[in-house]
Amino acid sequence: MFDTSDEYYMREALKEARKGFYSDEIPVGAIIVCNDRVVARAYNNTEQLNDVTAHAEMLAFTSATATIGGKYLQNCTLYVTLEPCVMCAGAAAWTQIGRIVYGASDEKRGYSKISSSILHPKTKVTSGILAEECETLLKEFFAKKRKY
Amino acid sequence: MFDTSDEYYMREALKEARKGFYSDEIPVGAIIVCNDRVVARAYNNTEQLNDVTAHAEMLAFTSATATIGGKYLQNCTLYVTLEPCVMCAGAAAWTQIGRIVYGASDEKRGYSKISSSILHPKTKVTSGILAEECETLLKEFFAKKRKY
Repeated sequence: MFDTSDEYYMREALKEARKGFYSDEIPVGAIIVCNDRVVARAYNNTEQLNDVTAHAEMLAFTSATATIGGKYLQNCTLYVTLEPCVMCAGAAAWTQIGRIVYGASDEKRGYSKISSSILHPKTKVTSGILAEECETLLKEFFAKKRKY
Repeated sequence: MFDTSDEYYMREALKEARKGFYSDEIPVGAIIVCNDRVVARAYNNTEQLNDVTAHAEMLAFTSATATIGGKYLQNCTLYVTLEPCVMCAGAAAWTQIGRIVYGASDEKRGYSKISSSILHPKTKVTSGILAEECETLLKEFFAKKRKY
């Protein structure tokens, strides 16, 4: 049997976040799962791409629709290590994604600080999955940045 | 002397929107101007790219930063024929763009229906430039769509 738990998939998103960490990117990772199949993997790439819109979720949405062939992600779940920002939540609404599972909350930039109605009305949300691990990675990154 | 009025640049954005129209895309066009130089042009490309995030503004932001070489657009103005959605306004915030000028208001999906605070606090906004022309193009597009 495959492990299809939220924790399992969040660990996959954390793997992406760690790739970001080692690429000197703010370590946020995302995967998109459709019918128990990972159809997209991405990590924040704003530095390498010199593009402030290149968040893990944005790259994952584009990648998932390319993999699936359709424009919409109603049967998919986004796993992302940090609460999506307004841009990414707005993008999620356009994709009509079925479910969003995130790890750490983003007290400053999280979409829920503006309005939960940014998401598509049918999108279900679960938060706090492996939140501590997701947050620790971000804290380590910023501690390292301050050091050098 | 060059014409550097908002109307002039909005006409350039309208040219992009018309390219969208003839490509069977919802006709929204955008340009980004930096020191009186057009550094990016784009039109909505969600159908051709099979990507619901490929709005004119998103493509223009990515293109502008590639042209300029920097990640931020503080000295730039975005001209867009339709009020940005939440995703695009969130993206604009990340770019710290200096000014946004839009044509038609978007009563359903415009960011201002959710919150004006989505934008960066330093971003100035002008609305209603050539609004009628911008809106007419959209109306023509949807009338054509209904017909066939």
